[in-house]
Amino acid sequence: MQAEIITIGDEILIGQIVDTNSAFIAKVLNKIGISVYQITSIQDEKPHILQAISEAENNADIIIITGGLGPTKDDITKTTIAEYFDDVLVQNDSVLKNIESLWKKHVKQPLTQVNKDQALMPTKAKTLMNHFGSAPGMWFEKNGKVFISLPGVPFEMKALITNAVIPKLQKQFKLPYILHKTLLTYGLGESMLAARIEDWEDNLPEFIKLAYLPNLGKVRLRLSAKGMDKERVIAEMDKQIDLLLPQIKDVFVGYEEDGALEFIIGKQLTVLGKTLATAESCTGGKIAEQITAHSGASVYFKGSVVSYATQAKIDVLNIDKRLIEDYSVVSIQVAEAMATNVQQLFKVDYAIATTGNAGPTKGDADADVGTVCIAIATPTKVYSRKFQLGNHRAKVIQKAVNKAFEMLQKEIF
Amino acid sequence: MQAEIITIGDEILIGQIVDTNSAFIAKVLNKIGISVYQITSIQDEKPHILQAISEAENNADIIIITGGLGPTKDDITKTTIAEYFDDVLVQNDSVLKNIESLWKKHVKQPLTQVNKDQALMPTKAKTLMNHFGSAPGMWFEKNGKVFISLPGVPFEMKALITNAVIPKLQKQFKLPYILHKTLLTYGLGESMLAARIEDWEDNLPEFIKLAYLPNLGKVRLRLSAKGMDKERVIAEMDKQIDLLLPQIKDVFVGYEEDGALEFIIGKQLTVLGKTLATAESCTGGKIAEQITAHSGASVYFKGSVVSYATQAKIDVLNIDKRLIEDYSVVSIQVAEAMATNVQQLFKVDYAIATTGNAGPTKGDADADVGTVCIAIATPTKVYSRKFQLGNHRAKVIQKAVNKAFEMLQKEIF
Repeated sequence: MQAEIITIGDEILIGQIVDTNSAFIAKVLNKIGISVYQITSIQDEKPHILQAISEAENNADIIIITGGLGPTKDDITKTTIAEYFDDVLVQNDSVLKNIESLWKKHVKQPLTQVNKDQALMPTKAKTLMNHFGSAPGMWFEKNGKVFISLPGVPFEMKALITNAVIPKLQKQFKLPYILHKTLLTYGLGESMLAARIEDWEDNLPEFIKLAYLPNLGKVRLRLSAKGMDKERVIAEMDKQIDLLLPQIKDVFVGYEEDGALEFIIGKQLTVLGKTLATAESCTGGKIAEQITAHSGASVYFKGSVVSYATQAKIDVLNIDKRLIEDYSVVSIQVAEAMATNVQQLFKVDYAIATTGNAGPTKGDADADVGTVCIAIATPTKVYSRKFQLGNHRAKVIQKAVNKAFEMLQKEIF
Repeated sequence: MQAEIITIGDEILIGQIVDTNSAFIAKVLNKIGISVYQITSIQDEKPHILQAISEAENNADIIIITGGLGPTKDDITKTTIAEYFDDVLVQNDSVLKNIESLWKKHVKQPLTQVNKDQALMPTKAKTLMNHFGSAPGMWFEKNGKVFISLPGVPFEMKALITNAVIPKLQKQFKLPYILHKTLLTYGLGESMLAARIEDWEDNLPEFIKLAYLPNLGKVRLRLSAKGMDKERVIAEMDKQIDLLLPQIKDVFVGYEEDGALEFIIGKQLTVLGKTLATAESCTGGKIAEQITAHSGASVYFKGSVVSYATQAKIDVLNIDKRLIEDYSVVSIQVAEAMATNVQQLFKVDYAIATTGNAGPTKGDADADVGTVCIAIATPTKVYSRKFQLGNHRAKVIQKAVNKAFEMLQKEIF
């Protein structure tokens, strides 16, 4: 069973937005055993939309189209799809009712004609009611193939996929079982890792594929298995991972399917009943932000001091001014003092501190661009490491965040 | 002049990573007058790669392919492209030298055979030397069309696009001028905005297109103009914006091309010589993180207290315990006290404070999910607003960040 995803919108083709919808759809289709053959992004342009749908019909069994269903003049997907299926648009009363009720609840402004026109629907489509916006989804069938058109607004699309599309697809098709397991490793390069596990990789059964996904100091190893026999897929995956783990135990930190590393750390702190705070300079709050992006963080995470300016390290974190003068603000001594002081300030068990220069210029630090010191305070000790993380601002920040989690992980597992 | 972008990698098709490369490439191509006709994402699979390149050759003049050039077994792009051009691979000595020098500088581990094999290059390709990784780019030409293959690692790809591909394309083709201007608006819905500016939109010249890009409380209006006569394109764009601005002046906050709203705010604070700090609860450091993602933030941004736990509001921000008991932790009273106290703590002119419940459960706050109070302290006053921002955690957080910047913007412009 193969799917193709078509995303429509000039904003994608000019690079103004990143197409996150496709990744979401691909992920949930994979979960129910549907492989995505191709993702195609095209402009809001009738002949090209018609061509893309026609090509997708040749390659795939399920075609999911997002975007171009809004109320404004640049949205032409609905009329174009109606033309593809030689169909006409007529008013759908339940859709109109849905729009009116949405407006009553959420919109203080009056319903305009363009909003009402969103209730015009192709007669050959089943309507997928959109409870979060005025553009409904559409479900067409032709020669055993399914064509689904959804709005491009991410949360409206996601709700329709989860609540309407996936259950309908599972009902309609007999689907294989697909299993992905992604092992997170930190601190060893892609080619060294590959050399180390080469024998194991060569002996993988044919229905299990391995991919290396390197990114800023970590390499993810993704194993993908697929088959109609669910038990066998799971058993073989477990067996292969049991063979692999002893070979990478020094760099393995967890499974991506269990969540990002900060989420794995959070679960462990919750289990241990321990708490965490951060003192961030060059990472500017990103460690705290990544931690608090996950619900349940309030159980173990107490807060952070983002002491971006040197004076704030003195005023808010009570760092001794002489320590900064003696060792410079980007130093392991200052990092360790930040960790210890924030640990006391928030009365927590563990603390992370970062101080460094993310660039592109020296700023009010005198350290080289890319120099970052990271300290970890635990109930029994404080220690720190100094890194050179390159000269690309966003990458220096993200690498420092990754390193900080990597260091903390080693203390609590 | 039309381009097609092909991104290769199973990780995209299973939704494990979001394809950010295409957006970057599309953006820089657009800037030099090359429109992107289509973006196609496909798996690491030989027949499909061959088919995609062949289809792209029919539709576009420039084909840019990323991904699948790594050293591991799942990377098959290079051999597949060589087959497409009926070519063979031979060792390229300068590429090998480049790899050896990269390993000497950055990699502590020895050079393996798979790394050395990355110096095998198709004889018909010009080599685009990759100074940040072992996989070089390739430039093929056939019947006046250009085929470019680049590594998928984002910063390697970006460096090759910026330093090698763009200059070569500009030299080879006579390109039209493309101009995008994107007006950021906050606080008015898409259809109301459209109704308000309908007359203006209907009278746009044919070579200027308008798109509405709504997202979490803001709508971006993107104007795109294209023509061989650069002066005329700029003049007409300026004229149309002059006609538009008076109609939207209550909701217009700036141009996206000038940077995100927090960047526009940062520039203004720098000009005014004023400083900023934040006290964040439900936003968890994201306001600070977005501010410090931009270089130059240290001029005006002093830091943040992420007082995630209620006790941290008392201990670190010195919020009166009785205030929290009387009004609850999610209240405009507490938000205002947080803003005032962090303003004093960091000795700054302006402060932002957030307190709320991002969900999905009530946590240690007793406020409903989605309730967020945001306060702004200025040199002369403090005020706050209470919002209901829905029930989707990541969206509540991002909407709160957007609202906070919107409120601060009104104070400093």
